[in-house]
This record gives sequence, C-alpha cells and structure tokens, in this order.
Amino acid sequence: MRHTVELRHASRLLNTGPTVLVSSRHGVQQDVMAAAWNMPLDFEPPKIAVVIDKNTFTRGLIEASGEFVIAVPCVAQAAMVTGVGHCSGRDVDKFERFGLRTQPGSQVAAPLIEGCLAWLECRRIPEPAQEQRYDLFLAEVVAAWAEDGAFTEGHWIEPSDASRRCLHHLGGGRYFSSSGLIDTQADTQADS
Amino acid sequence: MRHTVELRHASRLLNTGPTVLVSSRHGVQQDVMAAAWNMPLDFEPPKIAVVIDKNTFTRGLIEASGEFVIAVPCVAQAAMVTGVGHCSGRDVDKFERFGLRTQPGSQVAAPLIEGCLAWLECRRIPEPAQEQRYDLFLAEVVAAWAEDGAFTEGHWIEPSDASRRCLHHLGGGRYFSSSGLIDTQADTQADS
Repeated sequence: MRHTVELRHASRLLNTGPTVLVSSRHGVQQDVMAAAWNMPLDFEPPKIAVVIDKNTFTRGLIEASGEFVIAVPCVAQAAMVTGVGHCSGRDVDKFERFGLRTQPGSQVAAPLIEGCLAWLECRRIPEPAQEQRYDLFLAEVVAAWAEDGAFTEGHWIEPSDASRRCLHHLGGGRYFSSSGLIDTQADTQADS
Repeated sequence: MRHTVELRHASRLLNTGPTVLVSSRHGVQQDVMAAAWNMPLDFEPPKIAVVIDKNTFTRGLIEASGEFVIAVPCVAQAAMVTGVGHCSGRDVDKFERFGLRTQPGSQVAAPLIEGCLAWLECRRIPEPAQEQRYDLFLAEVVAAWAEDGAFTEGHWIEPSDASRRCLHHLGGGRYFSSSGLIDTQADTQADS
C-alpha cells in the first residue's frame, strides 16, 4: 500500500541519490527508462533535475506530454532496472517484456510502476536550451507517493528486508544498496 | 595514496549518488560545503551538475574563481560533513574548526580535502540564467582522483572497512551508506 508524501518532503525521496525509473506516456504510447543521473533541485515547491538522453524513446514522450513519473526501485527489481536500461521503447514494449504492472498517476498521465518504493509525479519546466545542450530536464513535483513502511514523515526507514533497499548504480549493471543508518545528530535536535 | 582517474571514468565517481563536499578558493579565501544535490551530466568530456544555494559563502568563491572541487567523503567523516553543512564560511574558518587538511589540486586552485575517497576538479560552465533561477551550477571535470583501494579501473570497490563507505544523506544529519554489491549482469559481458 502506498500513501501520499507531503510535497515539502518530496525532495527527501531523491536526497540519497538512488537510481530511478522514469516513466512517460503520450496518447497510447508509454515507456520507461532507468536514470542514475537525477537529483532534487528545490524544496517547495519541489523541483527535480534528470538527464534524459536524446536517443531515448522516453524523451519524445516527455517532450510531447510535458509529464513523467520518477519511481524509486528497490533491490528486488535490480535485474529489471538494468533490463529497461538496455533496450529501447522504440523496439520493444518494456512493460510487456518485463511484466511491469502499473497504476495511474493522480496528476499526470504517466504510469506508476508497481513494486517500487516511491513515486514523484513530475511536470516538465520547459528549458529548451538546456534540454538541447545538456539533455538536462527540470520538473516540478506535483504529487508524491511512498510505499508504507519505506518512507514516513519525511524520512526513509531502514528496511529489515534487504530486497527493499534503494539501488545506487555503479555502472555495468552493478549496484550498491543503501542501508546502515548513521546518525550524526543523535544528541541534538534534528532539523527534520 | 590517491591515483589519477581517467576522465572517461569520472562520471562513475558520482554515479551512485553520494553526498559530496564542495570546496572552493579565491585569492586567500577558501570554503567547503556539503551537497547531496549533485549528479553527473555527461561522460566525456565529463560534466557534472550541483546545486549551490545563494546564501552560501562557497557560491561567491565559485562565481569569482570559476572553479571548485567535489570530494566524495566516507562514513568516517560523517560528523564533519554534517558540521560543514551547518555553519557558514562567512562566520567561521571551517578548515580550522573541523581540522581539515588539504592538498592542492592539479588544475584548479580549490583544495582537495584529505580523508575523502575521490575528488573531481571542476571548472564552471557559465550558465548565469540557470544559476540565478535554480541555483544550478554546471561544470566540466578537468581532473579526477581516487583513493587507492576505493575505486579502480572505472569502478568503486566494496570496502571491507565500513567506515570507508560512501554517504547518502537522508536529511537532518542522518545518512545511509552504500555497500552490498548487486551484480545483475554477472552472467553477461559487462559494458566496461
């Protein structure tokens, strides 16, 4: 089950630098790609930045629709994340090939990929010069969701199940996962 | 001991989404700040993107010098990373307060903070409109270094010593660290 994440906490979903999935839809066409190159850009209203290569099918769908969803996948999905990063939506229906189930977004047409830990529904902030020059896309987060037990009250929770950890792509289909809470402010008031 | 990282591998140093330190120098003034909001932007020549708030002392030094160094700190440095993120170089000499030792960069005046796992010497790519609007700074990586035993031949190595893992900021001075290699392509040829 997933729950709404307050928009003021949305940046926290990407703050740890996870590798994400970017899903998009325009008309009857949809696609999903993997993106290690992403980061938060602002707190409130939340904005994010992500690199979307010119060669991707996803990019055309984002340019046409002005929308996409960023999903934070987990270790259990690692092979799928590598897989969707190694084929093109021009050639295959990745949803069919990888057996992806989806749920509709609340604010955008792009789908939420099931099995992930969190989702950010995003509306492109048009910056055509940057998009052309650097493949750099900026977006405002218009809705955010997280799986119960993964993220609560603005914080990721350390999962007891290692297969529910976030992925951090090393390159070449290899990942580290994140875990092991280190609290440098245990004796002071957290800034939340 | 550190070694040179080939520029074609520099993006891998940030590919896993670590929280980094940004150090800068202009004339006799220097500063260092923490930045969870960073990402690679291109492979070769390597480019990176990082968010530098208008309120930081670091920002003025980067605008004046056109240069900075991104360093990838480790778990052993977590309290220092939180610390440099909670005070301003306008008020204190962070190098003195946190006992930071530095080494000179090879291509830029900004210092390399000792004890980190990797360093990227960066030259700002001027995009004044984006810098003003989004606090978004782009840079070309002109030299890169990694600690022996931390990163080799384009790949992070899983450290046996947990205090040498990368940090991923959750917010509020809390971090996850990255570890636990997951190889989704163990049975196929890696892409490098």
